[in-house]
Amino acid sequence: MTVKVAPYIQKITPYRPGKPISEVERELGIYDTVKMASNENPLGPSPKVTEAIRADLPYIHLYPDGNAFYLKHAIMRHLARHHVKMDELLIGNGSNEVIDVLLRALCTPEEELLVSAQAFMVYELIAKAANIPTVLVPLAKDHRFDIPGYIERINEKTKLIALVNPNNPTGTYYTKKEFEALLSYVPERCVVLVDEAYYEYVDAPDCPNAMEYRKDFENLVICRTFSKAFGLSGLRLGYGVTTAEIGDTYRKVRAPFNVNELAQVAGVAALEDTDYLRRSIETNRKGKEYFYAELRRMELEFLPSQGNFLLVRVGGGETGGAECYENLLREGIIIRPVNNYGFPDWIRISIGLPEQNQRCIAALEAYLRNEGRVR
Amino acid sequence: MTVKVAPYIQKITPYRPGKPISEVERELGIYDTVKMASNENPLGPSPKVTEAIRADLPYIHLYPDGNAFYLKHAIMRHLARHHVKMDELLIGNGSNEVIDVLLRALCTPEEELLVSAQAFMVYELIAKAANIPTVLVPLAKDHRFDIPGYIERINEKTKLIALVNPNNPTGTYYTKKEFEALLSYVPERCVVLVDEAYYEYVDAPDCPNAMEYRKDFENLVICRTFSKAFGLSGLRLGYGVTTAEIGDTYRKVRAPFNVNELAQVAGVAALEDTDYLRRSIETNRKGKEYFYAELRRMELEFLPSQGNFLLVRVGGGETGGAECYENLLREGIIIRPVNNYGFPDWIRISIGLPEQNQRCIAALEAYLRNEGRVR
Repeated sequence: MTVKVAPYIQKITPYRPGKPISEVERELGIYDTVKMASNENPLGPSPKVTEAIRADLPYIHLYPDGNAFYLKHAIMRHLARHHVKMDELLIGNGSNEVIDVLLRALCTPEEELLVSAQAFMVYELIAKAANIPTVLVPLAKDHRFDIPGYIERINEKTKLIALVNPNNPTGTYYTKKEFEALLSYVPERCVVLVDEAYYEYVDAPDCPNAMEYRKDFENLVICRTFSKAFGLSGLRLGYGVTTAEIGDTYRKVRAPFNVNELAQVAGVAALEDTDYLRRSIETNRKGKEYFYAELRRMELEFLPSQGNFLLVRVGGGETGGAECYENLLREGIIIRPVNNYGFPDWIRISIGLPEQNQRCIAALEAYLRNEGRVR
Repeated sequence: MTVKVAPYIQKITPYRPGKPISEVERELGIYDTVKMASNENPLGPSPKVTEAIRADLPYIHLYPDGNAFYLKHAIMRHLARHHVKMDELLIGNGSNEVIDVLLRALCTPEEELLVSAQAFMVYELIAKAANIPTVLVPLAKDHRFDIPGYIERINEKTKLIALVNPNNPTGTYYTKKEFEALLSYVPERCVVLVDEAYYEYVDAPDCPNAMEYRKDFENLVICRTFSKAFGLSGLRLGYGVTTAEIGDTYRKVRAPFNVNELAQVAGVAALEDTDYLRRSIETNRKGKEYFYAELRRMELEFLPSQGNFLLVRVGGGETGGAECYENLLREGIIIRPVNNYGFPDWIRISIGLPEQNQRCIAALEAYLRNEGRVR
């Protein structure tokens, strides 16, 4: 007997997670696989984080602190110059959950979400599941966010305006000037959500830090994550900074114990390990420079990136990216095809450690030379 | 400037988490506090679990397996005699999330949730946040679920029928006969959700294991948790067993990486440590017997429990439970007032280790004797 499911739920194509690497290796008969597909931190976790988790293991039979008291204090210290208060912090099971809960807390099916057509996929999925109409803004020709396109599409139904800066998978960013233009246009009744998952890697001086615009536009939510520069993807930890009023609304919808104990403890330790953060950023900067030089040598098109990943045009038409992915996988290099983001002949490479980057470039060059696309 | 928030969200009174124990101890100038308030496992985590987590720490910078491949296989082995297939498993960030996602995946605001008025609070909160009308069934006079009351309230809008067995905070259960009567009455278009968070502690032979009714009623979801007998409240891990069809709908709504890496690894180890599970159940059985004997000696009313907690009537009228809570807290014993469940002059005590149970009884007896309620 079939259960009746609402059409807006039926229509969703769920994210299909792949098999664990160990299973893939077994099936393909390969080993020593390098994963450069999910924009994780190639340094591995901070030793101070793993030490903090070890010390907390005797307490995992107890519910986590539902208010994330110590973690919130650590974030407030980390953001000291922005004077964030406890009630202004949103904590989530990954920034994914911060976005999910926020959307459901703020938008009804009569209101609209405005978001880029080529940003982090999760926005569209979340909105579909909550039956909230989404208006998509295609990227501009230079693969950057089309801020005038955003402004054009704001209407009386627009409630939440979501931005990702720098953007994934392009690595591109909008400038301070563009952000200011948008904020000056947004009606007061709207909420602007800025996803800054890759904020720590930014080095472009004209890329805005949304935290600095809290005075200029009140209904702002800035999302950050521990999954990238802080190296904690596996623990699921993200946060948002906003007003106490939006914070209170968020807390009405989120689950009482949404963030696990070890993630909270790890988050505190990660924020204290400034040396690890510095090494993460430095490793990424050097890795990017290596890729830039090698891709230029091979005369491949790529987008300069403000994140910990690079979008590279490998050619091969509509299936080019997917074919490149399959070929590199057989060499033990996992990169990400990005056809679902509208880049069918590009691939996204997460910056790794020097030897991983070299293996990736060697495999990519061998494949593209074999295809006659690199001399 | 105020953001417009939908009335159904505004109306929610969020769960207000307390301060961490360490903060409470500092404020009250107490130490060596015993927490018997949240139905956690007093044994602490299994050493096999903490060992598995330690071994997995080098990988926490990587995203968790979104499909929870190894955990699902471990659950399938654990439930071997019920022949559960991978697609029939729902994994959540605590069973709380399993329930939350399921409700949003299955119900629209035009349909109804049917649930006990005195069961786990989270059902009502989740339904309010999703704008799904809830029909509440008060407990019967014997503080057990009112199955005829459930049947009476089923109407053409009823979509999800939620049961908790044994129930929290009462510890009571409905019988196989009652469950069968309900299932035979439920229309095929409805989904029956049975929350069996305390299943492992059950020893009443006429208490049904919902897993055994999957053949009799197809649209059944059985929720289990790692937070109680498996001792993993802090890691947030729960699962559901249902049909592949309901499983597919669930996966359309849940987040791609909803369950953290260490919870997945811990869950596998916890299911393998059958000795720990046996000790958990045995410690609980002996603790309950101790409480039963002491409460009878003090001539206090209590409800015999199928869980790892006990509901005890302490008297004192509308504020009796809250006052008892405050007094025991000053002695370093944290129990749970249950006025929000409609039991204003009762308290809920989670069964602890023998010495904790003795401290709790001593403090309770001293307080009630002082109040003239125990001779």
